[in-house]
Amino acid sequence: MSNNSLGITERQYFTFAENEPMPLDSGESLGPITLAYETYGKLNADKSNAILICHALSGDAHAGGLTSEGKAGWWDDCVGPGKAFNTNKYFVICSNVIGGCQGSTGPGSIDPKTGKPYGLNFPVITVKDMVRAQRHLIDYLGIDKLLAIAGGSMGGMQVLQWTANYPERVRAALPLATTARHSPMLIAFSEVGRQAIYADPNWNKGDYYDGARPNTGLALARMIGHITYLSEESMHQKFGRRLEARERFGFDFETDFAVESYLHHNGSRFTERFDANTYLYVTKAMDYFDLANGNGSLSKAFAKCADIMYLVVSFTSDWLYPTYHSKEMVSALTGIGADVTYCNLQSTWGHDAFLLEVETMTQLISDFLGRVVEHHEILLP
Amino acid sequence: MSNNSLGITERQYFTFAENEPMPLDSGESLGPITLAYETYGKLNADKSNAILICHALSGDAHAGGLTSEGKAGWWDDCVGPGKAFNTNKYFVICSNVIGGCQGSTGPGSIDPKTGKPYGLNFPVITVKDMVRAQRHLIDYLGIDKLLAIAGGSMGGMQVLQWTANYPERVRAALPLATTARHSPMLIAFSEVGRQAIYADPNWNKGDYYDGARPNTGLALARMIGHITYLSEESMHQKFGRRLEARERFGFDFETDFAVESYLHHNGSRFTERFDANTYLYVTKAMDYFDLANGNGSLSKAFAKCADIMYLVVSFTSDWLYPTYHSKEMVSALTGIGADVTYCNLQSTWGHDAFLLEVETMTQLISDFLGRVVEHHEILLP
Repeated sequence: MSNNSLGITERQYFTFAENEPMPLDSGESLGPITLAYETYGKLNADKSNAILICHALSGDAHAGGLTSEGKAGWWDDCVGPGKAFNTNKYFVICSNVIGGCQGSTGPGSIDPKTGKPYGLNFPVITVKDMVRAQRHLIDYLGIDKLLAIAGGSMGGMQVLQWTANYPERVRAALPLATTARHSPMLIAFSEVGRQAIYADPNWNKGDYYDGARPNTGLALARMIGHITYLSEESMHQKFGRRLEARERFGFDFETDFAVESYLHHNGSRFTERFDANTYLYVTKAMDYFDLANGNGSLSKAFAKCADIMYLVVSFTSDWLYPTYHSKEMVSALTGIGADVTYCNLQSTWGHDAFLLEVETMTQLISDFLGRVVEHHEILLP
Repeated sequence: MSNNSLGITERQYFTFAENEPMPLDSGESLGPITLAYETYGKLNADKSNAILICHALSGDAHAGGLTSEGKAGWWDDCVGPGKAFNTNKYFVICSNVIGGCQGSTGPGSIDPKTGKPYGLNFPVITVKDMVRAQRHLIDYLGIDKLLAIAGGSMGGMQVLQWTANYPERVRAALPLATTARHSPMLIAFSEVGRQAIYADPNWNKGDYYDGARPNTGLALARMIGHITYLSEESMHQKFGRRLEARERFGFDFETDFAVESYLHHNGSRFTERFDANTYLYVTKAMDYFDLANGNGSLSKAFAKCADIMYLVVSFTSDWLYPTYHSKEMVSALTGIGADVTYCNLQSTWGHDAFLLEVETMTQLISDFLGRVVEHHEILLP
């Protein structure tokens, strides 16, 4: 599907809060903070063509192109020349969230106070804290106003939080397959994932960086996640009741079904690139996410967002972030007079649809961005 | 809701296959086999008023009334004098499945060959094997033809299997909130639960009966299950984003939300009454369940069921056993000319609805059973 037309992309680092730690929602503070980020395309003369892409739970700064090891970006289908986020036109930025494990400061980073990895001494962070750190990066890049911020799932939460907190820094926002408030079902799945990690003896209350890693627990958490990213229908299409490398049932506790094999494979592969403590911190941040909380209501949270153009997208088979979550968002946004385009797309792919419905998303996103450019008379390179 | 009008009920035991082991679908055989069962009400003179109730994954023989410790049966709301399964009229039987851990022969039972608990030496069983064993119990009770067989979830699978295999032994069948074929999503959730058990160091490849039990893994499996038994909407109603014993977020990894506390409580409580190996065996049996398999099609599986009256019930918010599963069943049954009543009930309670929508279920079930009695001119006590 992807032609990796960006070629090999480079991870860059920005460090701040070295002298004065950044305050956090918890009341604690954090510093120094490093953000790993990548950029694609060229910033135009008046720095008005920048788009910030925010990643989901398991994502990182590598949204498009290839790493030097040849790994394609997590949204490479949509980021590149001629793609939805057309890097011939736009300067695209993606950074790993704080609390992350792909280059940004997180629980696996060295705590300057002790000289050892933070582990559970890392402060509990929120989506607002993630966004607060990203704002420092945008300041550093000299961008006064982002053309757009886009992201799906937890990326969409960051998008919403950005517009609520820094409305003057954003022209357009694309919250995709997301919610303004993490639901009890989402919290429940998060918590079971965390419990799977706690239960791994290697987890050792988060202090494992010099020993064996809690990979069994992390793989379990990931397997649970993978079920929720699909839909009943897409699982039928993808696996059905097909057996894996067996002609008939084994009548044992080895792998019988293809869907089991898929889960094992993805669970195990995840542990090669992800840190269990980051899984704890990032899911906790998602669970805490409720944009109305602290603002009185969703409308009040969006009170200063009337000048922002929104593209809200939900998917019919996404049972993790059902359509009505997006509709609540749209209702609050239209209520405050924002320019909102809302699409509830027919798809069988469940929550993963925002990554998989490439053709439709490309059309929708490029049209929307074109409209934003036209409305603000942005001069593209 | 319940008045425990059956009073204290007694667990009974029936042992068979002592000389000749019972053949199993796997090609192995099992014996001797003990089934724990309870009965409620009185068998009439011609033994025509017997109803067999089949339990779900975590159930047991104690469907109605109270144990001597005062614990109400799992379907006590529907089993008793004047209730859906009216014990003034019907003789109700419920037995613990083979592979179970509540009195019937299962992986925790003593293997006569070794004098030690079977553990993973217990043969992998199927729903058909469960039903095969139940038929021995019905033979033993001298019942030629059951008035009805009823059950929800895995209980419903047994109901369907009974009618497919012993159509001449059943007048009516009530498969509730169930499926004729375990879906890949159901298999996926089963497998993640099993992986949680395997990951517990106490599990020790199933050999733990003389040591610490794999309760952490079993509790995790149960927590995953509990999420799937509810619905997004019922979770909102039951918990919302309410905090548990906290005024504000703790910014730590203790319990923040009521829904987390609910999962912890139910996970932990489950380990007091359930065996981890049984969880493995019973979920495997469910995963293997596909009534069309071995019969060519669902219609062929039901080929001899034209004289059985069916009450099929699904629930709008049951995303584990969605409505279309029941519709497929209904379509095959009407196709072979069976008398089918089908209700897709509006409910917010998800899969648990078959246990919780007591008023509607009582009405539906008692009307349906009344019609069966009338049709077959059964003389009730």
